[in-house]
Amino acid sequence: MTANPVLAETIRGNWVENRHRGAYAVVDADGRIIASEGDIERPVFPRSAIKSMQALPIFARHADERFHHSEEELALACASHHGEDVHVATARGLLTRMGLSVADLECGAHMPTNATAREALRAAGSEPSALHNNCSGKHSGMLSVALAMGVPTAGYVGREHDVQKAVRGAVEAVIGESLTEGKCGTDGCSIPTFAAPLRAFAFGFARMATGKGLSTELGTAAQRLFDAATSHPHLVAGTGHADTLLMTAFKGRLMQKIGAEGVQCGAIRNKGWGYALKCDDGNIAASQAMLAGMLLKLANPDAEQKALLETLAHQPIKSVRGAKVGELRAC
Amino acid sequence: MTANPVLAETIRGNWVENRHRGAYAVVDADGRIIASEGDIERPVFPRSAIKSMQALPIFARHADERFHHSEEELALACASHHGEDVHVATARGLLTRMGLSVADLECGAHMPTNATAREALRAAGSEPSALHNNCSGKHSGMLSVALAMGVPTAGYVGREHDVQKAVRGAVEAVIGESLTEGKCGTDGCSIPTFAAPLRAFAFGFARMATGKGLSTELGTAAQRLFDAATSHPHLVAGTGHADTLLMTAFKGRLMQKIGAEGVQCGAIRNKGWGYALKCDDGNIAASQAMLAGMLLKLANPDAEQKALLETLAHQPIKSVRGAKVGELRAC
Repeated sequence: MTANPVLAETIRGNWVENRHRGAYAVVDADGRIIASEGDIERPVFPRSAIKSMQALPIFARHADERFHHSEEELALACASHHGEDVHVATARGLLTRMGLSVADLECGAHMPTNATAREALRAAGSEPSALHNNCSGKHSGMLSVALAMGVPTAGYVGREHDVQKAVRGAVEAVIGESLTEGKCGTDGCSIPTFAAPLRAFAFGFARMATGKGLSTELGTAAQRLFDAATSHPHLVAGTGHADTLLMTAFKGRLMQKIGAEGVQCGAIRNKGWGYALKCDDGNIAASQAMLAGMLLKLANPDAEQKALLETLAHQPIKSVRGAKVGELRAC
Repeated sequence: MTANPVLAETIRGNWVENRHRGAYAVVDADGRIIASEGDIERPVFPRSAIKSMQALPIFARHADERFHHSEEELALACASHHGEDVHVATARGLLTRMGLSVADLECGAHMPTNATAREALRAAGSEPSALHNNCSGKHSGMLSVALAMGVPTAGYVGREHDVQKAVRGAVEAVIGESLTEGKCGTDGCSIPTFAAPLRAFAFGFARMATGKGLSTELGTAAQRLFDAATSHPHLVAGTGHADTLLMTAFKGRLMQKIGAEGVQCGAIRNKGWGYALKCDDGNIAASQAMLAGMLLKLANPDAEQKALLETLAHQPIKSVRGAKVGELRAC
């Protein structure tokens, strides 16, 4: 297997300390490769980077007609949120309206990603609940799909549950590839995740961004989800996170979503291009530097957007005393 | 530049998720390569993995004669400790005996690595001090060198300070290579770190393990430091850490030390072999899996040691709900 190129590295003093290899594909809705690095055919797990694809059954199964998801709830369905108050309240709101509760979530509980939210929980002597799980919005959306389909909600995370079959079918429809049992794992939040080529995920995001090649229904659903996410970037991640900062700075022009283990997916909407990137070793900060390097070349950033991308493409490494002693940088 | 081989990978379900490349050298005291993978001539920063080398001036500059370092204090000089009570007390003890205090440490303060110690500090409403810094033992040792040399202690972390010149000279003497300004950075604890080939660090550890090729004084110093570290493995790292567990299980036969950003150095003492390993991307868990894979092949582990190495060579990856969904494994 050929090694992917080094797309990010850390420098300490005047010498390279770490090297991060990776690959990315930028593809249009006709499947043309606009740009790429490394092996874009090797199947990778997209993890949370394709939550917007996984949310499509909310529309395809008409859960939206029954529960009238707000734009905020749709943004949260696409989110790896930080467990801040607004995230928890938004997830709880949808559950309550559906006659469900936190007990119906099967994602498990973990401490909020946001430090202030963590401290507040600790100070209150409280344990985190499944609502604080970064995936609670996605799971609430999946519960709405189960109710709309008239199937039991219990076990909705299982590979053979109708909800996950609907999710898998929606992802296959947009990326134009079969998702197979031979390349399947379980995500941190207990739902299935299927590996597929970066090229295919990039193609899927291009089709979601443009509607091109999709049914009218899927295309409309994709637009609503991208509009929701890019209109509410704070709900898709949280305070200070790169995805929130980038989508805010690009003012609707960029759909951007991180996935665990160094995945980055999204679309440069005004160009109609989708992209998918994976850092081979799973390093998140390195994948953000790679993403920034890619967007600096391809997204025509204005001055403000460029300044933000440069901070991601050149992340300082500091000593314990706070002196800058190196940097993680895009290559 | 040729890519190093994949020495560890993570599996999720039935598919590879992450790949970690790296290199290692196992060398004897005559410089013979016993085993190797990848590019062992590419200079890498050893970081904390060579603290035992950096402690040699305690003897070379006769600080030991003046301050009579205990075996525990020598072990702590070689340590990246976890800020547990015994670590803090041991560092404070030497400082007090030297007429110095925490204010003389220039490593900076960070929260203890050990979770219980962190919780205790938080519960007491206390801030961490430089004594909790994982390097406080090394820094206390360096302060003893400054006093023994009769030079000012202030600024002892600086590249041009006599203490750091002595440290650099000692490392050069054992690894048989010049450390140059062209491959130099600043470590997290503010002292200089110089990049050199893995082969050279492995050679240095073989010489320290055997005394072969070193002056009697350096050889004796190395034995005292290795004996201290392997007799007090809990002082070299902390509760539950791989280095502590490994040195405990190998009962003096293994000197093992982690360095930041995926470095592992040490010696299989009874064989007289030194080793040095670096995970290209800096991932610590992956470097531990690589180390375990290497020791399984080369260290003739007994049943108990083998069982421990297998837990490091096959680390489970769990979902938020605690189900095993994959593993990080040595290749």
